[in-house]
Order: sequence, then C-alpha cells, then structure tokens
Amino acid sequence: MWNSPKVGILGGGQLGRMLVESANRLNIQVNILDAESAPAKQISSHDGHVTGSFKEREAVQELAKKCDVITAEIEHVDTYALEEVASQVQIEPSWQAIRTIQNKFNQKEHLAKYGIPMAQHRELVENTAEELAKVGGQLGYPLMLKSKTMAYDGRGNYRINSKDDIPDALEFLKGRPLYAEKWAYFQKELAVMVVKTKDDILSYPTVETVQEDSVCKLVYAPARNVSDAINQKAQELARKAVAAFDGKGVFGVEMFLLEDNSLLLCEIASRIHNSGHYTIEGCALSQFDTHLRAILDLPIPPESLKIRQPSIMLNIIGGAAPDTHLKAAEAALSIPNASIHLYSKGAAKPGRKMGHVTVTAATMHEAEAYIQPLIDVVDEIRSQRSDVKTQPQKSGPSKPVPSVAVIMGSDSDLKTLVPGLKLLRDFFGIEPEVDITSAHRTPTYMAEYSAKAAARGIKVIIAAAGGAAHLPGMAAAHTALPVIGVPVKGSSLDGVDSLYSIVQMPRGVPVATVGINNSINAALLAARILGAFDPAIQSKVEAYAENARAENMELKGTKMRELGWERYFNQM
Amino acid sequence: MWNSPKVGILGGGQLGRMLVESANRLNIQVNILDAESAPAKQISSHDGHVTGSFKEREAVQELAKKCDVITAEIEHVDTYALEEVASQVQIEPSWQAIRTIQNKFNQKEHLAKYGIPMAQHRELVENTAEELAKVGGQLGYPLMLKSKTMAYDGRGNYRINSKDDIPDALEFLKGRPLYAEKWAYFQKELAVMVVKTKDDILSYPTVETVQEDSVCKLVYAPARNVSDAINQKAQELARKAVAAFDGKGVFGVEMFLLEDNSLLLCEIASRIHNSGHYTIEGCALSQFDTHLRAILDLPIPPESLKIRQPSIMLNIIGGAAPDTHLKAAEAALSIPNASIHLYSKGAAKPGRKMGHVTVTAATMHEAEAYIQPLIDVVDEIRSQRSDVKTQPQKSGPSKPVPSVAVIMGSDSDLKTLVPGLKLLRDFFGIEPEVDITSAHRTPTYMAEYSAKAAARGIKVIIAAAGGAAHLPGMAAAHTALPVIGVPVKGSSLDGVDSLYSIVQMPRGVPVATVGINNSINAALLAARILGAFDPAIQSKVEAYAENARAENMELKGTKMRELGWERYFNQM
Repeated sequence: MWNSPKVGILGGGQLGRMLVESANRLNIQVNILDAESAPAKQISSHDGHVTGSFKEREAVQELAKKCDVITAEIEHVDTYALEEVASQVQIEPSWQAIRTIQNKFNQKEHLAKYGIPMAQHRELVENTAEELAKVGGQLGYPLMLKSKTMAYDGRGNYRINSKDDIPDALEFLKGRPLYAEKWAYFQKELAVMVVKTKDDILSYPTVETVQEDSVCKLVYAPARNVSDAINQKAQELARKAVAAFDGKGVFGVEMFLLEDNSLLLCEIASRIHNSGHYTIEGCALSQFDTHLRAILDLPIPPESLKIRQPSIMLNIIGGAAPDTHLKAAEAALSIPNASIHLYSKGAAKPGRKMGHVTVTAATMHEAEAYIQPLIDVVDEIRSQRSDVKTQPQKSGPSKPVPSVAVIMGSDSDLKTLVPGLKLLRDFFGIEPEVDITSAHRTPTYMAEYSAKAAARGIKVIIAAAGGAAHLPGMAAAHTALPVIGVPVKGSSLDGVDSLYSIVQMPRGVPVATVGINNSINAALLAARILGAFDPAIQSKVEAYAENARAENMELKGTKMRELGWERYFNQM
Repeated sequence: MWNSPKVGILGGGQLGRMLVESANRLNIQVNILDAESAPAKQISSHDGHVTGSFKEREAVQELAKKCDVITAEIEHVDTYALEEVASQVQIEPSWQAIRTIQNKFNQKEHLAKYGIPMAQHRELVENTAEELAKVGGQLGYPLMLKSKTMAYDGRGNYRINSKDDIPDALEFLKGRPLYAEKWAYFQKELAVMVVKTKDDILSYPTVETVQEDSVCKLVYAPARNVSDAINQKAQELARKAVAAFDGKGVFGVEMFLLEDNSLLLCEIASRIHNSGHYTIEGCALSQFDTHLRAILDLPIPPESLKIRQPSIMLNIIGGAAPDTHLKAAEAALSIPNASIHLYSKGAAKPGRKMGHVTVTAATMHEAEAYIQPLIDVVDEIRSQRSDVKTQPQKSGPSKPVPSVAVIMGSDSDLKTLVPGLKLLRDFFGIEPEVDITSAHRTPTYMAEYSAKAAARGIKVIIAAAGGAAHLPGMAAAHTALPVIGVPVKGSSLDGVDSLYSIVQMPRGVPVATVGINNSINAALLAARILGAFDPAIQSKVEAYAENARAENMELKGTKMRELGWERYFNQM
C-alpha cells in the first residue's frame, strides 16, 4: 500500500505522539527528530529516529535523508534548514508557509492581501515608548503588544490597558521584534481545523475554545449557541485563509466571534492543533489521520470529518507539584464517556500541557454534565499553583435550544395556551419559545418565522388561532416541520369555525389539529413527537398516562365505590 | 496515578498491540513476551520486553519478575508456567480460568455446572469409529467433531454430515483429544464482551457475528433485527457464564441464537476478542481500555460501554499473495467513516488476520451502505485464494424497521388511505407497516398492537376510521407515540361524525387530526414528524412543497396567463 513511504516529523512532543498513533494504525513508519526519550518516540520502536533538536541543521539534514516526506509538529522550526533540504525531500506544508506563519506579523500581512478580516495591527520598528504611545493613540486601549516570533500559548503577549502600562510592556518583551494589535471584544473564540490536500481544502466543523492563562482550556465541538450559518461562515473563512499558503496538511485556524456575529481571524498554525484533539473521538478521521493522509496524498472522505457526537475536550495542565496533574487523570477514570490521553512527558512544570480528556455524549448538555466534576478538579489543581492569581475561566452552559415553538395569532389566545405551556415546562421540562405572529396582521414576519424555525433547531410548532383561523395552516405552508393547530373558541359559532379552518387544509399542507381550546393535547402531542426520538421524554409521556390512569382508577374510582354515586355527587 | 504498575502480556500479536495502544494513552508500561519484532512491541519502546515464546517457562518467569500483573492475549499459553509464578505476580484472569477455558471440553463441563445452555456434547475416550458412530446415533447428524485443545478460528473442527464421514473426520483430527457436539441450527451468531472487575461483572451490548471459513468476517454492533429483550438476555447469559470463572479482565462470549429465539452458549475466550474490536470506535471505552482497567482495579463507568453509533467491523484477511490484503486497506481509505487498523504483521499468509476496518454511522442502514463496496473488495481478494472453494459468506442487510404504522378500523377505509400510502412509499421511500385493527371488533388486538408499537421501533401511527371513529383515540390511549387520525367520510353526516369523534379527544390523550379523507396530509404529517429528526426526509418534505409551488406557479399559472381564464376553463 502507498509504497511504504517514510514520514519525518520535526518535534516529538504530544502532537508528534498522536501523529504516530495514527501512523501506527496504517503501518506507516514515522521518523522523529527530537531528544532520545521524546513522547512520540516512546510509541514507535525502530531505528529510523534522529536524536537532536528540530532547530539543528545537521539533524534536519539527517532526518531528510531517511524520509520521503517531512512535516513539523511545531511552527518554531528552522525554516532555513528546511529550505536547504527542500530539493531532497518533500516538505509539507511548504517551508515558505511555515516561515510566513511563524512570524505572526508577516502572517497577518500575508493574510491581509487575501482579504481576510483581522483585528487592526501596527508594526513597531523602533520599539520605543514614543512609538508605542503613537500606535496606542491610533488603535486605542486596551491593546495587545505582541512578539512577532516565538509567540505561542500566550508567551510573547502583553496586554496594555492604558498608556501607563507602556514601559512595563516594553520591558517584558525587551529585545523581541514587536507589533501591536487592537483589542477585539469578542463573544467567544472559535476554531476550525482545515485539511489542505493536493487538490482540495476541507474543513472540520467550527468549535468553541475557552482559553485560561492564555492556554487552551476547553474545546466544545461543535461550537455551542452558534447558528449553522455562523458555523459555515467560520469554516469558509478558515478555508480561505489556509488557501493563502502553499503545501499540504492540517492547519489550525483561530477566530474571534464578535458581538455583532462577524468574524475576525486571530491566528493560523501550520500544523495539527490543540483545538482539534476532539477529532480523535468526535470524528471518524482525526486531525492526525487527515494530516498524514493529506501529506501522503491518500484519500479523505469528507463525510469522515463530520462530528459524530457532541464532544468536549479538557486539557490536563501541570500543577504545583510534578505529579499534581495526575489527580485530574485519576478523576477522569470515573467520568462517563471520558477518553484519557496522557502524553508521557514525565514530571510536570506548572502550566505545561500534560494530557487531555475528551467526553462525548448524545447531546452537548449531557456532555457538559459528565465533564463538570472534572473541570472542578482541574480548577482546584490550578488554584494551588503559585504562578497564577486569577479566577478560573468559567464557561457558561450551552443554552438549551428550544425544540418547541408556540405561536399565537393574538394575545387573546394566550389564556387558551397557558395550560399547555405550563404542562410542557413544568411536567416535561421543555421550555418552549413563545411568540405572537398573525397570519393576517404580520404576514411577512409569520412567513419568515416559520421558514427559519427548522434551521434554529425547532422540531415542532404549536399554533393557536380562532375564527377564520389561518395561522396554523399558513405556518405549515412555510415550514417542513410538523405544525400542531389549536382551534380557539371565539364569540360566535362555538369554535367550529376555527376547527374547520385549521383541520380542513388542502392536500399537501397538513396541520395536526387537536380539539377546540385543547392546548393540553397540543402540548402532549408535541411531547409525543419529541418522545418518539427521545426516550427520556417518551418515559414522561408514559408517566403522564399512568398518573391519569391512577387518578381515575384509584382516586376517583375508589371514592365512588366507597361513597356510592349519590354521596359522591353531593360532594362534587 | 495507580503507582505506575507494570503489565506483562503473554503474546504480542494484534490483540497485544491494541492493548498497548490503550496502555500508551494511560502511560502504563506494558512488557510483552513474544518474538523480537512482534506487532505489540513495535509501538512500545522500552527495555522491559522479553524475547521468547509464551509457551517457554523460563520466559514466563522472566516476564513475571518484571511485572506487577500478567495477562494473556491468547488462551493457548502454558498455564503450568503461570501456576509456577502465581505466588510472585498477579495473574488476570486466573491461571485456573485459562486452563479450564483452553480445553473446550472442560470449559463446557464447567459451564454445565452453572446451568449455562449449550449444544449437547459427548466426550470421546477411545477415538474409534465405533465410539464416534455410537455418539452420532445419540446426537444425530450433522454433528461437529472437535479437538478439546488448541482449537481456534475453525482449526480443530470437522463437520460430520453422515456416518460415512467418520473415517475422514478421525483421520483429520488424528492424535488429538476429541469430543463431539450436536449441530446447532441457528438463525444468527451473537457475541458479548464481558468485563469482570474486582467486584462487578459488566457487559457490552450484544453484537452479531458473521463467520467465513470458520473465521470472524463481520461484526454488526449492535446485533441487527434482534429485539431489546434478546439483546439483554444474551448479555445476561454471557455475564452468568463469565461469573463461573475466577479472575479479572475481558472475556469474549460467543452464542447461537436459535430459530425459536432461545440462546445456546457456543464458547468463551478468556481474553479480548475479535468480536469486540468494534468497541474502539463504537464505545467510549474499548475492550482494550476496559481489560486494562479491570486487571488494574481502575474505575469503569458503565455508561462508557454503551454503543455510541451503529458500527460494522470487517476483518482484513491475508490473500493469495503476501500483499494482496493491502488492496482492502487501500479501498478502505475511500470508505466514509472507516477507521483502519493494520497489525503490522509483515507478509501475509492466506487466511491470516492482517487488520480490520470499522465503519460507524448514524444508522445501521447507512453503515451497511458505506461498507458494502469494501465487503466486495474483500470477497474478490478471497475468491483469488486457492485454499478456499466456497462462496463468500453473505449477510443480508438489516431489515428496515418500519417507522410508520398505518392502521384502519375496516378494509373499507383502505381506499381512502391508498393515496397516502403511495405517497409514503413512492415519494418518501418510507415503507409503512399496514394492518387492520378495529377498536370495536378487535379491541384487545388493537390495544396490544398500539402498546407494543414504540418498542418495535415505530415512531408514528396513522389511524383511519369513520362514523363513531374510535380507532385513532383508542390507539392514542394505548401508546406514547404520536397518533395521526384520518376521519373517513361515511354514508351519512358527510364525515363530520368521524371528524368530531377523532379531533374532540379529552384532555390528556391527543390525536393529530387531519381533514376528512385527507390521507395525503396524514402521510405528509408523518413525513414531517420523521423529518424533524432526519435531514434526508426533511429535504423531501421541502422538495414536495417546491413541486407543488412549481406546479401551481409555473405550470398552471403560466397556462392561465397565456390562455386566459375562459379558454383555460374550456380545456379543463
């Protein structure tokens, strides 16, 4: 198969190790350039490894001789060493891409040419307080002072809150090439893993990342409380940005989602990335699988990049003592659906990435519940570190996406709906989205509301109307969802007008009609529909029926048998 | 964490290799006893391995010295060597369990004491034709002649179709300890992976296995077309059987499901097993993860043993040439959602297990569609082997579980339902289950039918009735599923009687009522309900609406605008 190519990796840390896991399953030999006992070498026993540093030219040359293709698990490699061997060995992605990306200022300048939206930034040439103050005047405060090179996991960044911070900032980043970046007020940070193959650019779904101490803490896949449209838009932006670079392989793209739902690119990594670790369990092909396939020109079915189940990744970070972090790994053993990855890095330094845990579940809500006790352990470990002072980064739970929409033509219909709304909320724990929209008075809003309901995650619409009751039928005409119609009894015709208007729809546009004023049955019907696909809700439907049976049989029946009909009647 | 125990494994083949994959992720050192280049050693680089055979006493003793706990990836180890070191090192499962299980006759005799149902069998003492003919008279033909020891993957088995085969059978198994087993006529073969921990016995769900050339070919997880009750019963039987043995770890239990839905235990393996490979992708914790945790007394959350998504595992078997099997691996690269595992065994012999592929999908039906082209490749590779003559083992597709049930009170309602039935079948590709059951004439059957519908996988019931139309409401009273009622117009009252009987249900028991005789809308409503949870069906609902729009706007509208109303009317 694929002529047994040999792959060389600059760097044998956890990213290299997880690449080796993937390569092992395809029986592809990976030669690691790193120290003798590097994590990646521990799971790959052969004599093709190279001992040394990915910054040594001789070592890179030695690796090049032993491999058919070379890749890197880190940006901060010697791209001049790579350039030297480029004629002997394939390098993926290209050394040019790595060189541009490893200088964050050049990366941004390059991306700007391709029309990628980014926070405003200014290069510093003299690195003086005067120059920086001038830039501060242009970009406003707070602003980020950043090192162009060797900047990762928050190293090389300094937040300047006002002009007064300038001297400290310059002192902190002394001797480094600098640029300044306008502060981005974001609602959340997103990331997309992009796979560049010889003739295609594919992307994994958009995920949400939570940073703590400038290091990735949590990844939610897919991103929570983000519409499909934004998820798609973020993937498009990520693919467009990666298209600006030469070479094959996986790239990590980090973005800000601003308050107005627009996106700014934050930065690109020319490699597999922490925000893509969830793909090991979350997708059929992990970022490590697809990176290998991309650099070796092996097929990648796009279906295999979809998220199989909602997943949450939590990093295990070094604590106060060299083994404190193992408490998190130990706690993870008892977390349902938790997959544990320890990197075998030996003794930990505070803040160092020592492993990660991914929890999958049928719903994001369930995954959040499973992982919470582990987040608490991780926060506790962090609180014992003397090098951090801030509170742990909390991430709110996912907003429950409403599955039921309840609409009415007029607020006069609300009192009819209240029993059903209460039943949904109080008995079934289903919080519906409730709105007024009239087929006659707000026809355009009604149409738009109905047309977009499915994309927002709504599964069932309940619509109540009276008289010439058009709302349920018109909603049904604008959506592919099941619409339940509640005929509301008006002042004349006893509700028969409403019933006929709702139930006698033409062939082609069905409305599930319940009895006149019977919002209880509308709510129960919605619960039955959801319950057909959700065992927890179906159990509640059964419990409701059992309650009714018990009330009729045991309570009322027993009483009538005891009292006889006449006394029973007199007590009614 | 867990005091860094060292685990020793007798055998370093693919099962040992996959155990090492799990151990690597927990940074647990595994010492392999096997030849220098054994598959498991290739992904575990340290100096704790032992070179030798798991049948050599000295090698076992050397391994014991280096480990805290010893386990085996194969039954055919020297249990006397294990017995010798039992005082120095923990052995899991116990050497007694391995010794009993490795002799298949003793295994069966032992299990019989615990009341485990198995095919009838008789020991042979003299191994003569006369003795075997006598046993054949007792058990009937065909029967299986089996070696008590060293029997795996069909080796050591001979099928005796009639008395005439006896001399050949005895010649084939000459010199081996034998027993004979009554032929089991089964509808399918099932398997359950059981995890025995220090204080619990857990099981993975029941899977379906397809054997070819006496070797596992395919595993469907969960077992297809098998009720929840049988799935549970098989797990209970498997746990009960494993409870009969001492020691911790994963056991593979193979069973026959007979035509009458009863179960016979086929055999037990005292180790991780080919029929459990699907757990790597199919479950949060694989059989390799849980085996390690069980022998090391680490926690195993039961939730993590559930099947996340339907999975199919296909073995990659050595073909005619040493690398023919790689064609299957190469084909698998293009299969959506396929995870490939090659065992790095080097050149293949025909029939040898060289790797496996697992495909996961949202539904079993989808997984079957994805993997079929790969099964074709595997069958083609096998057809080129000179050592096999038989046709490939085909496994029928899963029966599509009907999602919609359509019931009517009387066959006179059928003509009203036909347009809806045709729409479901022909446009939506949904084959409903159709039955007659009357609330008045067959009240008990109607009640039972409705009560069991959800458990059979039905998601929506459509019920049609006329006059005093009780069927939809009564069905709704016996099920938690959504029931769609179609009022059928009778000879009097214009269908209003049916409509009111169906729609005006009391609070608590909803019926989703459509217009009189409008089976098209009932079918569409069912499709909308399914479509809320199935994007493919929802797209078809949208396509149906688009067709109707186009027909009205473009076809009829255009014609009327062209012809004018009068000519249009005259042509109607």
